[in-house]
Amino acid sequence: MNEFFPEVSRIEFEGKDSINPLAFKYYEADRVVGGKTMEEHLRFAVAYWHTFKSQGGDPFGSGTFQRAWNVGSPMEVAEKTMAANFEFVTKLGVPYYCFHDRDMAPEGETFQESISNLETMVAKAKEHQAETGVKLLWGTANLFSHPRFMHGAASNPDPHVVACCALQVRHAIAATKELGGENYVFWGGREGYETLLNTDMKREREQIAAFFHMCVDYARRIGFTGQFLIEPKPKEPTKHQYDFDAATVLSFLREFDLLDHFKLNVEANHATLAGHDFAHDLAVAADAGKLGSIDANTGDLLLGWDTDQFPTNVYDVTRAMLVVLGAGGLGSGGLNFDAKVRRGSIDGVDLFHAHIGGMDVFARGLLAAQAIIDDGRIDEFRAQRYAGWDTGFGKSMLDGNETLESLEAKALELGEPKRVSGRQEMLENILGNLI
Amino acid sequence: MNEFFPEVSRIEFEGKDSINPLAFKYYEADRVVGGKTMEEHLRFAVAYWHTFKSQGGDPFGSGTFQRAWNVGSPMEVAEKTMAANFEFVTKLGVPYYCFHDRDMAPEGETFQESISNLETMVAKAKEHQAETGVKLLWGTANLFSHPRFMHGAASNPDPHVVACCALQVRHAIAATKELGGENYVFWGGREGYETLLNTDMKREREQIAAFFHMCVDYARRIGFTGQFLIEPKPKEPTKHQYDFDAATVLSFLREFDLLDHFKLNVEANHATLAGHDFAHDLAVAADAGKLGSIDANTGDLLLGWDTDQFPTNVYDVTRAMLVVLGAGGLGSGGLNFDAKVRRGSIDGVDLFHAHIGGMDVFARGLLAAQAIIDDGRIDEFRAQRYAGWDTGFGKSMLDGNETLESLEAKALELGEPKRVSGRQEMLENILGNLI
Amino acid sequence: MNEFFPEVSRIEFEGKDSINPLAFKYYEADRVVGGKTMEEHLRFAVAYWHTFKSQGGDPFGSGTFQRAWNVGSPMEVAEKTMAANFEFVTKLGVPYYCFHDRDMAPEGETFQESISNLETMVAKAKEHQAETGVKLLWGTANLFSHPRFMHGAASNPDPHVVACCALQVRHAIAATKELGGENYVFWGGREGYETLLNTDMKREREQIAAFFHMCVDYARRIGFTGQFLIEPKPKEPTKHQYDFDAATVLSFLREFDLLDHFKLNVEANHATLAGHDFAHDLAVAADAGKLGSIDANTGDLLLGWDTDQFPTNVYDVTRAMLVVLGAGGLGSGGLNFDAKVRRGSIDGVDLFHAHIGGMDVFARGLLAAQAIIDDGRIDEFRAQRYAGWDTGFGKSMLDGNETLESLEAKALELGEPKRVSGRQEMLENILGNLI
Amino acid sequence: MNEFFPEVSRIEFEGKDSINPLAFKYYEADRVVGGKTMEEHLRFAVAYWHTFKSQGGDPFGSGTFQRAWNVGSPMEVAEKTMAANFEFVTKLGVPYYCFHDRDMAPEGETFQESISNLETMVAKAKEHQAETGVKLLWGTANLFSHPRFMHGAASNPDPHVVACCALQVRHAIAATKELGGENYVFWGGREGYETLLNTDMKREREQIAAFFHMCVDYARRIGFTGQFLIEPKPKEPTKHQYDFDAATVLSFLREFDLLDHFKLNVEANHATLAGHDFAHDLAVAADAGKLGSIDANTGDLLLGWDTDQFPTNVYDVTRAMLVVLGAGGLGSGGLNFDAKVRRGSIDGVDLFHAHIGGMDVFARGLLAAQAIIDDGRIDEFRAQRYAGWDTGFGKSMLDGNETLESLEAKALELGEPKRVSGRQEMLENILGNLI
Repeated sequence: MNEFFPEVSRIEFEGKDSINPLAFKYYEADRVVGGKTMEEHLRFAVAYWHTFKSQGGDPFGSGTFQRAWNVGSPMEVAEKTMAANFEFVTKLGVPYYCFHDRDMAPEGETFQESISNLETMVAKAKEHQAETGVKLLWGTANLFSHPRFMHGAASNPDPHVVACCALQVRHAIAATKELGGENYVFWGGREGYETLLNTDMKREREQIAAFFHMCVDYARRIGFTGQFLIEPKPKEPTKHQYDFDAATVLSFLREFDLLDHFKLNVEANHATLAGHDFAHDLAVAADAGKLGSIDANTGDLLLGWDTDQFPTNVYDVTRAMLVVLGAGGLGSGGLNFDAKVRRGSIDGVDLFHAHIGGMDVFARGLLAAQAIIDDGRIDEFRAQRYAGWDTGFGKSMLDGNETLESLEAKALELGEPKRVSGRQEMLENILGNLI
Repeated sequence: MNEFFPEVSRIEFEGKDSINPLAFKYYEADRVVGGKTMEEHLRFAVAYWHTFKSQGGDPFGSGTFQRAWNVGSPMEVAEKTMAANFEFVTKLGVPYYCFHDRDMAPEGETFQESISNLETMVAKAKEHQAETGVKLLWGTANLFSHPRFMHGAASNPDPHVVACCALQVRHAIAATKELGGENYVFWGGREGYETLLNTDMKREREQIAAFFHMCVDYARRIGFTGQFLIEPKPKEPTKHQYDFDAATVLSFLREFDLLDHFKLNVEANHATLAGHDFAHDLAVAADAGKLGSIDANTGDLLLGWDTDQFPTNVYDVTRAMLVVLGAGGLGSGGLNFDAKVRRGSIDGVDLFHAHIGGMDVFARGLLAAQAIIDDGRIDEFRAQRYAGWDTGFGKSMLDGNETLESLEAKALELGEPKRVSGRQEMLENILGNLI
Repeated sequence: MNEFFPEVSRIEFEGKDSINPLAFKYYEADRVVGGKTMEEHLRFAVAYWHTFKSQGGDPFGSGTFQRAWNVGSPMEVAEKTMAANFEFVTKLGVPYYCFHDRDMAPEGETFQESISNLETMVAKAKEHQAETGVKLLWGTANLFSHPRFMHGAASNPDPHVVACCALQVRHAIAATKELGGENYVFWGGREGYETLLNTDMKREREQIAAFFHMCVDYARRIGFTGQFLIEPKPKEPTKHQYDFDAATVLSFLREFDLLDHFKLNVEANHATLAGHDFAHDLAVAADAGKLGSIDANTGDLLLGWDTDQFPTNVYDVTRAMLVVLGAGGLGSGGLNFDAKVRRGSIDGVDLFHAHIGGMDVFARGLLAAQAIIDDGRIDEFRAQRYAGWDTGFGKSMLDGNETLESLEAKALELGEPKRVSGRQEMLENILGNLI
Repeated sequence: MNEFFPEVSRIEFEGKDSINPLAFKYYEADRVVGGKTMEEHLRFAVAYWHTFKSQGGDPFGSGTFQRAWNVGSPMEVAEKTMAANFEFVTKLGVPYYCFHDRDMAPEGETFQESISNLETMVAKAKEHQAETGVKLLWGTANLFSHPRFMHGAASNPDPHVVACCALQVRHAIAATKELGGENYVFWGGREGYETLLNTDMKREREQIAAFFHMCVDYARRIGFTGQFLIEPKPKEPTKHQYDFDAATVLSFLREFDLLDHFKLNVEANHATLAGHDFAHDLAVAADAGKLGSIDANTGDLLLGWDTDQFPTNVYDVTRAMLVVLGAGGLGSGGLNFDAKVRRGSIDGVDLFHAHIGGMDVFARGLLAAQAIIDDGRIDEFRAQRYAGWDTGFGKSMLDGNETLESLEAKALELGEPKRVSGRQEMLENILGNLI
């Protein structure tokens, strides 16, 4: 357990005066905040793909990372990569990891070989989990990297490709169950389109719905009790992704009678690519009772693609944690670092810096959010602002007992409403003072 | 009928060789295209607010336009403005106009005075309509300009403000009915929020739903048989508008049991502000059977606000008309020019140039779209592409008769799918050659 | 001095434990940081226009603010507004204010009346300054609000309009001199274009250059020794503003032999509208020795227009202050709050909340930036990274003593370079730990 | 010459009634337009990299294209690829191609091997050129794909890497000269930065300037008389690229005394990523006498990355050609299709469709631009609009003979200027009618 990151030991909490970029300043797993430990609140997970499989390539250049685990035959690489994962996760002190089938086991020459590769590696993962105590937050299937998915996975114009998806997802769900995964995620990487000239959007969405019904049915039959999650993203790789944002996914689930079976996995960078604050899309999900889990990263709002950076801004995180705490926490979901180090950060230690920064800013944001709740002024201001809806004709309107005419009479009786400040700047000062 | 635009006579069709910016080159009202006249297909409407009420102000400067109808007491201005509207619409030769209550009649000192002003002006509008044959495409209430709506209309934290909305909407629906309006539109200008610190988004959306149920009930009771339309917009004036895009509105309608009562009024510039092509948001509405009407304008995609320009790009319009024709036309909806001349285009004649350009590009787009349909190659290509879903296990999957296991067996039997080109560039050439 | 904000007394510093939104938690005018007091470092100024002249209107609605100083004849309003300014600035405890000619004195019926109004108000401002000790950071002329500027100010196609600009700027410079203003700012609000179809961009830029040469000449002749500043902005109100960003303005100054006479006034929200980080555009200016002053605000990066919000994010501010401190400070420039309260923040106290938040976040950012400099690790890392350029063939190359051939020989001798991590995440952790 | 695209013959002009996506409808090489043939005006070039080296990979998936020329050892692949290039260019009937060193010849194990590979392939290219008559528009060096450039090429913190650039560029210039290339292009793919925390922007720009001076000096010494071009791009791959847009590059050239030695290669998609219309950035270059060449592609303005699509929109192209014709044409530059087929367009014939579409839309745009010039109304309108600057105090101002005082006197004499419409909508109608 000291093979791939020999220069780094278990990361420690050093506290408020720490200036050490390889230690936690805020994250203290056992510290109780608002009745739960930080570890229970935050439920961090490391993402297998970015952290261990990425080579640092970008659209203009090839890989830059030199990873000791990336040497040998495909299955040797798979085994070393898995060892690196469990060493890293353990040293970092996070409880969870997440994976795609193709992260863990290489695509074979045939479907059978791919299945067999996955089964082999799942067995090894189970051993690693038992040995280290590390758990699986969620599994998923990679239905976007292979050329066969170039025109879509479940939304492919060719049902033959959808059959390939079925094969792959069946084994990915089974693997997730085998490893005790608490959730199974669907990110529709290729579910979208480039041009309506060659696309039947209506049919493609019906195809996806039919596919999801088969997945729900399969999971029920094999006894997988984890949560199903859909991850919204508005664009990239396709010009228009069907799962644009939380509201779009909720509409889809409602339309195709799937709402009872899914929650959302909201990603910060995907929310901002869709034109929303991270906290907004979390709130859309939470208001519908569908906030399932979080992909904890950040985008660069001046860049128009998914930069998948580690979160570093405590304001964004505090606003996110206010929504999470307001929703009663993440349940069986968690905070998965779907984030990657920059292409020039080529060393193993850079992976630690990145995750430590992300964990610390979430710990700091949790503390700030709890402080805001404990302070109470913001919640009180908001409650007062809507107090008119708790009684009188406000309540009656919500209860469906008013008409346009009855309200017109009320308006004529009351005259012009009083103008009241929304106090946005005062509330932002309170938030700023508590961060 | 020649008071406000004496320098312009009835606009004529001059045909393909025209280079006259004050004549139609493509729009010929009576020309039959695909079984209907251009006028029946396009159902153009002039927007009262931009065309007659705007003064050319912008956030950095005051009004520049000098309008002969904008002189006198508020009610004198209202009468002249109405005369200008009917003169303009008649000279332009379009069949419809659209209005907000406050476009047509000034806000009074009291609610009663506002109601009375509106009733007076509606009576005059009815006369003008009878005299000119011009019809009302839709009416609406302006629930965004007055300071009382600064924190929302139906979504206001204060139910007193919502009572004011009820009063105003009741009369606006009644006015629309009185004038034979074929639709009534809701654009939620202030229905959104600036910061979650002072906002209860969940409750505000419930308030809006309750409000809409009252509107539906009222319309039914007074026998208004026109269509109710919601117009999506993602942002501006508020940071986050609740009616972000077509999918978001459909989700809201589904959630609150309003889907049977509403269709969508899709605006080009609002679609692009939401990150979608105009044709995409039209298709989202059409696929749900909810394409009600169109606000025909365009934005500048390099600018981040609602520029509300007149459409000039035949590619965008052709793609839009392909969706409209595919959906069987606009029904009782139409193409409303929710668009304004630039601030430096200060003369009455500029209003004609702008509308002529917009009408001509839609006529050209209609011709191109019909030519594409008549040509048949694009539709044929798309049909072939999805042919696998019409029979065999494709059809069976859509019918709910397959499982992940049955499809896995199919994949193992068939092996790797054949890769087929999507031919996007060929299809774009066909479209380009037919424009 | 207690007429317009009777509910607010002089704002006090309460220190680190403060949670009071009407007190300073970080800003302590006399505290010495890196050899200068906070007041000397930050040189805050209040912006007359947003803070006292704005009524809270937006493109979709009229003014919402009810200001006690906005009652009476135009000159009465001007006098009350000025009193409000000096009361506010004094209670807030900032040393400076900034103004446009039309903020301070109303436009008259004739040019002569406008000149006379301005002279009257400047005399009064001089008295207020003497009485309160408040100083003028900069003045400017409003060459964008009046309809005569709709096609440009100095870039207007009509030289008659440019003569009007000359008149106005002459008096604005004179007023700035009279009030001891330390700078004079040019923001080219209407200097840009909507369409090349009616625009000769080349000539318009030549016009502006000719205009600036006249301004420089005039200032020299009357003995105005303050600094001339140009404020870049990429778009809004026009589609394309000529002063797009710092680099574009520097190119213009170089092309037209104006570089010796101007520095830049960099605004955060304008930088981000141009697609740059605030710190980037500051660094572009500073690297050229041309960082003159700062408009301290922030935009909303998910919105595409100039939201002019008060700064609240300590990360952005810290990165900005690192550039400022690296450039040796702001010299005779300062931090002008070109920012406005939200439209729903209608009370006088909201103006205090907003400015306090902005001042506090800059104080916090100054402390963090100085801590980073004192810590030294980031500077040391950067110095080491470029050490190869201080000696050997690196230095020789910069000195102009190498050729492609001599360097090719070096490359062949040395072989493949060693790959070294850029350590972005580590550096971000250090920054995060010091904020 | 019929090996790689056996299914496609020489592409023919079929004229106005053509609906054939594999023929030209507008492009007729010998047709004379405004005194020159279409071929002379447009000077099309095929881009080696996108058309022959791309495999269709994207950030979420591997290559999809199956190219017959991409089989064998690296040098075998290089030879077949070259044969494919000359077959394609000949069948398409365009006069030019463009290449990077690494497109044409593979990177070797050592620098020497890379040099040798390039020399071998250049000799073969020379033979192909002689045989087919196809010419080289420009060459360049790929200083971005190899991991050694991850922190920059000429802007690298390590001068050792810059020596590697010198080696590579020396041979790329020599190859370009050997092949009669009419231009040599610098696109600074990695010249930019991710974070100022580890970057000395000032020094990096000085490094680049020193590097360019060496290149100019080398070209002069070996007698390369082609034009040097810099290609602006604002972002991607780095967060901030130093060559942001045309104005930024001009500023750099002015600052470092390089203006006499360079022109600009303006790319449509890079202009729009920088927030400009394509025509704007062309005009910025042209106004400075620096419009050298064009990368003819288009972006998707709703997507925030460089989509490098083939141009299909005649409006954008017409506006671009108006600038080109106004500048007197492209000189020794040309229209290089720096564009790629979509990832799902996997067949050779898709490459033809794409290029035909691009050529045809430029031919159509050229015809429209010439028609607009011949029509004369737009030019006349613009000339009249600025007529005041040709005489009187307008001319005197441009000549430097006026002062603020003399103009103030003029303004007082003349009073308020007359407001005149900018007629944007009329001009857009004229343009629309002539397309």
